[in-house]
Amino acid sequence: MKSRTWQSRLPERKADPAFEAMNASIGVDIRLIRHEIAASKAHAAVLADAGIYTPAEHDSVNRALDSLAEEASSGSMDASGFEDVHSLVEHRLTELCGGAGAKIQTGRSRNEQTATAQRLYMKESASAAAGAIQSLMNAMIEKASENMDAIMPGYTHCRPAQPIRFSFYLAAHVAGLSRDMGRVQDALRRLDECPAGSGAVAGAPFGLDREKAARLLGFAMPSLNALDSVSDRDMQIEIVSCAALLMVRLSRIAEDLILWSSPAFGFVSLGDTYCTSSSLMPQKKNPDALELIRGKAARVAGDLTALLMLCKGLPTGYQKDLQEDKERLFDAVDTVLSCLAVFEGVVREMTVNAGAMKSAIGPECMATDEADMLVQKGMPFRQAYSQVASAIAAGEYGNGTAAVSPEDSVERRRSAGGTAKSRVAAMLEAARTSSPIM
Amino acid sequence: MKSRTWQSRLPERKADPAFEAMNASIGVDIRLIRHEIAASKAHAAVLADAGIYTPAEHDSVNRALDSLAEEASSGSMDASGFEDVHSLVEHRLTELCGGAGAKIQTGRSRNEQTATAQRLYMKESASAAAGAIQSLMNAMIEKASENMDAIMPGYTHCRPAQPIRFSFYLAAHVAGLSRDMGRVQDALRRLDECPAGSGAVAGAPFGLDREKAARLLGFAMPSLNALDSVSDRDMQIEIVSCAALLMVRLSRIAEDLILWSSPAFGFVSLGDTYCTSSSLMPQKKNPDALELIRGKAARVAGDLTALLMLCKGLPTGYQKDLQEDKERLFDAVDTVLSCLAVFEGVVREMTVNAGAMKSAIGPECMATDEADMLVQKGMPFRQAYSQVASAIAAGEYGNGTAAVSPEDSVERRRSAGGTAKSRVAAMLEAARTSSPIM
Amino acid sequence: MKSRTWQSRLPERKADPAFEAMNASIGVDIRLIRHEIAASKAHAAVLADAGIYTPAEHDSVNRALDSLAEEASSGSMDASGFEDVHSLVEHRLTELCGGAGAKIQTGRSRNEQTATAQRLYMKESASAAAGAIQSLMNAMIEKASENMDAIMPGYTHCRPAQPIRFSFYLAAHVAGLSRDMGRVQDALRRLDECPAGSGAVAGAPFGLDREKAARLLGFAMPSLNALDSVSDRDMQIEIVSCAALLMVRLSRIAEDLILWSSPAFGFVSLGDTYCTSSSLMPQKKNPDALELIRGKAARVAGDLTALLMLCKGLPTGYQKDLQEDKERLFDAVDTVLSCLAVFEGVVREMTVNAGAMKSAIGPECMATDEADMLVQKGMPFRQAYSQVASAIAAGEYGNGTAAVSPEDSVERRRSAGGTAKSRVAAMLEAARTSSPIM
Amino acid sequence: MKSRTWQSRLPERKADPAFEAMNASIGVDIRLIRHEIAASKAHAAVLADAGIYTPAEHDSVNRALDSLAEEASSGSMDASGFEDVHSLVEHRLTELCGGAGAKIQTGRSRNEQTATAQRLYMKESASAAAGAIQSLMNAMIEKASENMDAIMPGYTHCRPAQPIRFSFYLAAHVAGLSRDMGRVQDALRRLDECPAGSGAVAGAPFGLDREKAARLLGFAMPSLNALDSVSDRDMQIEIVSCAALLMVRLSRIAEDLILWSSPAFGFVSLGDTYCTSSSLMPQKKNPDALELIRGKAARVAGDLTALLMLCKGLPTGYQKDLQEDKERLFDAVDTVLSCLAVFEGVVREMTVNAGAMKSAIGPECMATDEADMLVQKGMPFRQAYSQVASAIAAGEYGNGTAAVSPEDSVERRRSAGGTAKSRVAAMLEAARTSSPIM
Repeated sequence: MKSRTWQSRLPERKADPAFEAMNASIGVDIRLIRHEIAASKAHAAVLADAGIYTPAEHDSVNRALDSLAEEASSGSMDASGFEDVHSLVEHRLTELCGGAGAKIQTGRSRNEQTATAQRLYMKESASAAAGAIQSLMNAMIEKASENMDAIMPGYTHCRPAQPIRFSFYLAAHVAGLSRDMGRVQDALRRLDECPAGSGAVAGAPFGLDREKAARLLGFAMPSLNALDSVSDRDMQIEIVSCAALLMVRLSRIAEDLILWSSPAFGFVSLGDTYCTSSSLMPQKKNPDALELIRGKAARVAGDLTALLMLCKGLPTGYQKDLQEDKERLFDAVDTVLSCLAVFEGVVREMTVNAGAMKSAIGPECMATDEADMLVQKGMPFRQAYSQVASAIAAGEYGNGTAAVSPEDSVERRRSAGGTAKSRVAAMLEAARTSSPIM
Repeated sequence: MKSRTWQSRLPERKADPAFEAMNASIGVDIRLIRHEIAASKAHAAVLADAGIYTPAEHDSVNRALDSLAEEASSGSMDASGFEDVHSLVEHRLTELCGGAGAKIQTGRSRNEQTATAQRLYMKESASAAAGAIQSLMNAMIEKASENMDAIMPGYTHCRPAQPIRFSFYLAAHVAGLSRDMGRVQDALRRLDECPAGSGAVAGAPFGLDREKAARLLGFAMPSLNALDSVSDRDMQIEIVSCAALLMVRLSRIAEDLILWSSPAFGFVSLGDTYCTSSSLMPQKKNPDALELIRGKAARVAGDLTALLMLCKGLPTGYQKDLQEDKERLFDAVDTVLSCLAVFEGVVREMTVNAGAMKSAIGPECMATDEADMLVQKGMPFRQAYSQVASAIAAGEYGNGTAAVSPEDSVERRRSAGGTAKSRVAAMLEAARTSSPIM
Repeated sequence: MKSRTWQSRLPERKADPAFEAMNASIGVDIRLIRHEIAASKAHAAVLADAGIYTPAEHDSVNRALDSLAEEASSGSMDASGFEDVHSLVEHRLTELCGGAGAKIQTGRSRNEQTATAQRLYMKESASAAAGAIQSLMNAMIEKASENMDAIMPGYTHCRPAQPIRFSFYLAAHVAGLSRDMGRVQDALRRLDECPAGSGAVAGAPFGLDREKAARLLGFAMPSLNALDSVSDRDMQIEIVSCAALLMVRLSRIAEDLILWSSPAFGFVSLGDTYCTSSSLMPQKKNPDALELIRGKAARVAGDLTALLMLCKGLPTGYQKDLQEDKERLFDAVDTVLSCLAVFEGVVREMTVNAGAMKSAIGPECMATDEADMLVQKGMPFRQAYSQVASAIAAGEYGNGTAAVSPEDSVERRRSAGGTAKSRVAAMLEAARTSSPIM
Repeated sequence: MKSRTWQSRLPERKADPAFEAMNASIGVDIRLIRHEIAASKAHAAVLADAGIYTPAEHDSVNRALDSLAEEASSGSMDASGFEDVHSLVEHRLTELCGGAGAKIQTGRSRNEQTATAQRLYMKESASAAAGAIQSLMNAMIEKASENMDAIMPGYTHCRPAQPIRFSFYLAAHVAGLSRDMGRVQDALRRLDECPAGSGAVAGAPFGLDREKAARLLGFAMPSLNALDSVSDRDMQIEIVSCAALLMVRLSRIAEDLILWSSPAFGFVSLGDTYCTSSSLMPQKKNPDALELIRGKAARVAGDLTALLMLCKGLPTGYQKDLQEDKERLFDAVDTVLSCLAVFEGVVREMTVNAGAMKSAIGPECMATDEADMLVQKGMPFRQAYSQVASAIAAGEYGNGTAAVSPEDSVERRRSAGGTAKSRVAAMLEAARTSSPIM
C-alpha cells in the first residue's frame, strides 16, 4: 500500500496484507475515476468562489485534473497501491500542483465523494439501460410486425390453452418492458440530487456553494440533507431492484424461447451467432445465450439480496460496510446492459416457423370457443363448459376438427388487449410511437 | 374440498388431502373477497351490455353480489372447503341466482380474476402505505421542531465524527422517507391499468367492453395486453421492493435508537408503551418495538427474494406457481403498515435528553473545525489536518477544551443541506408543506 | 393483552394495540406448547433435586403440567391474550398450583425456553423430514424398477443429448435425495445438545443439574455455553438451508415432469389426483401439484434469506429480533413436509409412456456413438467428432437410421454410474438396501 | 475468440462480441487450471488402460500436461481468447502432442470436467476453511485464557443483563465456530465422490475405469450416477451455505467489537493494524476491518441467494445457466478465507480493558441475583422478582451498591455451560484439546 497523502493520527501501521487487500477498494472504484475527476473540478470551482483557491491555483488544479482525465481515458494511469480512487486523485493532484493539491479536500470528505461519484455513474447507467431497453423493444416490435399472422398455441401451465398470435406474445413483453423503462425513468428523476458538499456527515463549512457544484455536475439541485446523502444507499438499491425485475422478465422470455427453439416445439430457430456446440456430442446446437441470460437473473437477484442485507440494521452515517455497495451495483448494471444487448441480437436473428406453430394447435385449443358458441346460442357458460368437458372426457371431442378455426379463434378476442389482429397492430403502433426517452 | 361449481373433464378425483391442502388458496385469498365481488359486479355490467345478461338477470346478480359483500363484511361468510375466492363467489352466486350465476364466468378466467383482485388490493395498500409514511414523517418533523437545539455527536463508523443537531438527524430520515413515498406514488401510477377482461391468456370474446370494466373499478384504463396481464407479477414485485427498501430504512433508525436509548448513551428515553420487561431480570426495560421492526426488515427482504425467485425462468402465461405470490405480498404489506404505525408511536413517545447528547461531544468532535480554522488562516487543508492529527497522536490535543464550541461547529455548516439551524428549519418547513399525497 | 404473571418494573402500560399485536408471538409459538410443557417438567425435576421444590410441590407441578398437556392436545386450551407460550404456561401453572407455579421460573429465562422448545421441535421435524425423504426415494426406486427398459433422450440445454434409461433419470435424483438425507442426519447430530439451564445469558444459578434436564428431554448432553445457546440461531438456519436445497431439487424434478407430461412430450401421464381443471377452458388438465412444488422452492429460499438477514450484524445475546425466527422455521418445515408427501403421491400415480420416450430419440442422439465407433477403428476422437459434425451440418447424417440403436447406446455406458442396465440395477439395489435412518 | 479445437456442426459464426464476452468463462475458470490438468492426467491414465492411448502416447500426454502445469504455476500461460479452461487444455495439448492431444476428449465431456475440477477445488477450499476456522478459534481461546478474570456486563436487547466473563463471551463464539467446523467437515465427507467419467449425461463408454480415475484424484469413490454428477450443484450450494452461516457469525462478533471498541464502551482497544483514519476528520480511528467483515456477510448471503435461484426450476442435465455457479462459489470461498484471516489478526491484536468492563457493571446487573437470594430464603421466584422490580421502579434499588458483587454473580452460575471460572476454563480446555481436523 502506497502511503496515503495524509499523515494521520495512526502510526505507519504494521501491514497485514490480508487486511490491506480487503480494505483497498481501488480495484473496484477505479471505474469511477472519470466521475471523481469531474466532481473534483466542481469542488475546485466552489473552493475558488469561496476564496480558498486563488484564480491561479484554481487554474493549475483545473489543468492538472484535465491531464488526469486524459491519463485515465487513455488507460495509462497507474492506480496500483492506492486505497481508493479518492486517495488516488488527491495524491496525484498534490504531486502535480503541490499546495493547491493539498487544498482540494478542504471541506469535503470521501464519504460525500463516493456518494457523488456513484450518483453520476448511476445517472449514466440508468440512461444507458433505458436506451438498451428501447432497442430491445424495437427489435421485438419489428419481429412482431413481420410475423403478424403466425398463430401458435397460447400456453398456461405449460399446456396449450387458446390460439394466440406470436406477435401478441411479443407485444406482451413489449408492454412489460415499457413498465421496466418507466421504473428506470422514475429512478433517474430521483437520482437528480447532488451529494457534493455534504462533507463527512454534517454538511459543508465556509458557506460552500452546493447549488453551483450541483449545476456544474448536471444535477437539478443539491441533495436535501448531508447526513442522508453520505449514509443512504437507497438509490443503489432502487437501481438494482429495477435490474433484478428486468432480469426476471428476460429470464421468462428466455425460458419460452429455449423451449420453442427445441426439437420438441420448433416454433423458432435461433441464429447460429447465439448458439454453441458441444465438446462431445457432434449433433448439438445449444441456446447458450438464452440460458446465460436466464441464469444471470439469479446473479442480479443475489446482488439485490446482498445490498438489502448490507444496509439492514446499519447505524445512520457512513460505515465502512458500505464499501461493499459498488461491486454489487456495477455487477448488476454490467449484467443488465450485456443481457439487453445480447437479447436484442437473439431477437433480431431469430426466425419464426409459422407452420410448426400452426401444427401445434390441436382442436382442444378451441374448446373454449366451442363453449362460447353454445353461449351465443343461449346456454349459460358453465353449462356449455361442462358439455364440452364431458365430450373431451368421453373422447368424443374434436375428432381432429373443431367448429372454430385458429384464425377465427384469435379474431374473436377483439376487445382491448386481445389477440385479434387489429388489437395487436394497435399495441405495436402505440409502442412504436411512444416517445423514446432520450 | 367442496365440489367445484363446474363439472370438469377430470373425474371426481380420489382425494389426497395433502395435495388438496396445498392446492387450496382460500385460506389466503379470502382477503380479496371484497375486491373479487367488486370485479364481479363490473364484469356483470359488461356482460349485460353485451346482451349475455338480461336486465332482470343483471339485477338479480347485482343484488346477490351485494348480499355476498354484506355477508363478507359482517364476517359471516363460510369459505371453508372452497378452492379459492373465485370459486367461492361463482358457487355462492349460482346458489343465489341459478342460471344467472352460471353465466358469470362467461368470457373470464380465474387467471384474470386473481390479477384484477390483487391489483385492487395493491392500489388500496399502496395508498395506505403512503398515508402511513406521511404520518411517520409528520411525527419526526414535530419531534425535530421541538428539539431544534439538542446537539449530539454525529457518528461515522460508530465513533463520534462532528456535532450535529438531533433535528438534523431526524430531517435526514424525513428526506429518505420522502423518497420512499415517491416510490410508492410511482407504483400507484403504474398500477392504474385494469386486467379485467384479459381472459385466460388471449383476451375477451364477445367484444366485451374492457374500458367500462376499468372505469367501474376506478382504473385509468384497461391493461394493454391480456397475456401480459395474466402472466406478469412485476407490480407485486415492485410493491414488495418498495416495502423492503422502506423496512431497511426503518431498521437503520431502529438501530440508532436502540443504541441511543441504552444506558451507554442515554440520548433518548423510549416510552414504556413500546418497551417490555424480562421474565427473569427485574431491572430490564427492553426496546422490543424497535428490535422487532429491525428484525422485520429481514422478513420483507425474504418476501422479495421469494417473489423474484418464484417468477425467474417461469414460462410466460399463468402457471400455478404464481399462487404463491399472494402470501408474500400480503405479508410485506401487513408488515410495513404495522411497522410504520408502531414506529410513529415510538417517535411520538420518545423523549430527548439534550444534556446527555451534549456531554457525549468530546473535544475530538471539533478536530475538523480546528483544522478548518487553520485553513482560514491560509494553511492548506491537508497540512492543517496533519497538524491536528499529530497533536491528537501525541496526546496534546484538546485538554478538555476546544477552540470551537459544538454550537459554533454546527453553525459553521451553513451550506444547503447542512446542520446549521436555519438550514434544518428550512428542511423541516419544506417537508411540512410538501403537499400530502391524498 | 392479559396481564403478565409478573409485576415488572414498568407501569401497567398504556396499550398501543398495533405494538401489542406485533409483540405477541403466541399466535405462532403456541405450536411449541407440547415442547414447552416437556421442558417445564424437566426444569421442575431439576428444581426438585436442588431443593427449590419440595416433593409435594414437585408432584403438584407435574400433575398440573400433565393436565395442561392434555388440554393442549385436546385443543381446548385458550391461549388468547397471552404474549407467548412461555408466559401462558407460567400463568396457567400458577393458577393451578399457586406458589409452586410461582417458583417455576427460578433460574430460567424465556431466552433459554424458546431455544429449548425450538430445538425439541427441530429434532422432531428433522426426523420427520428424513422419513419423508426416504418414502419419496422408495417411490422413485419402485417406479424405476418397474420401468427399467423405458429409454428416453437424455437432455442437456433442453435438447436431446444421448439416450438414457428413465430409471437412470430417477436413480440420479435418488442419489441426490440421499445427500439431502445425509444433510438432515448431520443436522440431527448437531441438534443433540440441550439449551435448558442456560438462563438469560450467563448460565444457571443454584448449581442446577443441566445434565439431568438434557437427559430427561432426550438430548445427548447439555449445550456447551449458555450465551451461545440463548443467542445463536445457526441450527435454525442450517435446517432451513437443508430445506431450501431439498426444495431446489424437487423444483428441478417438477420442471422435468411438467414438461414431460405436456402434449409436446407425452413421456409420462400424471394421475388425475394431482391435476386440476381450468375455470374457463374445458380441455385443460393442469399439473398443479408439480407447479406448486416448483413455486414453493422460492418460498423456502425466501425463508432462508430472511433468517440470514435477521441474524446478520445482530449483537451477541438475545435480541427481540429473534422472535422472527420461528415463523420462517415453521414455514420451511411445513412446506418441505407437505411437498415431500405430495411429490411421493405424484411419483406413485405417474404412468410411464415408454413408446413416446422411444419415439423422441432421433438418430442425432446417437451421434456421439457414431463418433465413438470411429474411435474404436482408431481415429482420434476429435477427428471423429468433426467428421460426424460435418455430416450433420451437410444434412447427410442419419437419414433416419443410425448405426447404433438406442438400446446399444445405453448399454455402451457400462462404467460405474452409467446408464447401462446392470449399472442402474446396482444403483437401485444399493439405494434400496442402504439402511433407513430411523 | 480463438477458434475452438473442434470443427463443430455450426459454421464459423458471425461474431457478436457482447455474446462472446458473456459466453466465455475463461476469465473465471482459469482458476481451475491446476485441477483441470490433474483431471486430464487421470483421464489419460484411464484411456491408456482402455487401450485408447498407446504407452508412448500416454507418456507424451503426461509430459505435455506436466509442462502445462508448470506454465500455469509460473503464471506464463496465455489463456486469452479461449472459451474456457477445458478448451484451453485440449487446445494446448493438441498443439503439444498432436493426435494424442486430439484423443484426450475420448469419452469425456466438459459437463463432467467442470464438475470434477470444481469438486477438487471445493475439497481444497473446505480444508483451507477448516484450518482457518481452527486458527481463529485458537486465537480466541488464547485471548480468553489471558483474560479469564475480566468481567463485563452480559447484554440482552443491547442493555446490561447479568455479569459475565469476557472469556465466557469468547468461549460462546468458540462453541459456535466448532459447529461451523463440523459443517465444513460434513461437506468434505459428501464431496468425496469423483464425477470424472460421467460423460455428457449418460456415463462413460469403452468401459472406462472410473474407480481408477477417482483413486488417482484422491477421492474415496466415483460418483453414483453420471446424470446426477453433471447436473447437480448441491455441493456448491452446501459450501456456500456453510460460508453464509459462518459469515453471519463473524458479523455478530464484529458488531459487538465495533461497539465495545467505541468511546461509549471502551471495553477493548483494536490494533492500529486493523483500523484506518478519516480523510477529513483528524481525530478518527475507524474499525474498518470489522465493518468490512460485517458487510461481507451480506455479500456471501447474496452468493447463496444467487446459487439457489440459479438452480431452481432448472431441468435436470447440464444447462449453460450453470456456468454462473463458479463466480459465486469462488467469491464466497475467497471472502470467507480472507475474513477468517483478518478476524484472527483483529483478535490477536485486540487488548482488553478490564477496568472499563468492570465499571460498566451497575448494581442493576445484579438484580437477578438479588431475587435469587430471596429465593434462597424461601420466597417463590416470581414474588422475589416483583419485590426487586418494585424497588427499581421506585428508585429504591441499589443506591450504588448491591448485596452481590459481580465476582460473586459470575461464580453463582456454576452449572455446566455457565460463566463461573471453572466452567469457562473447562470450555476452553475442551476446545483446545479437541483434535484438529487435519
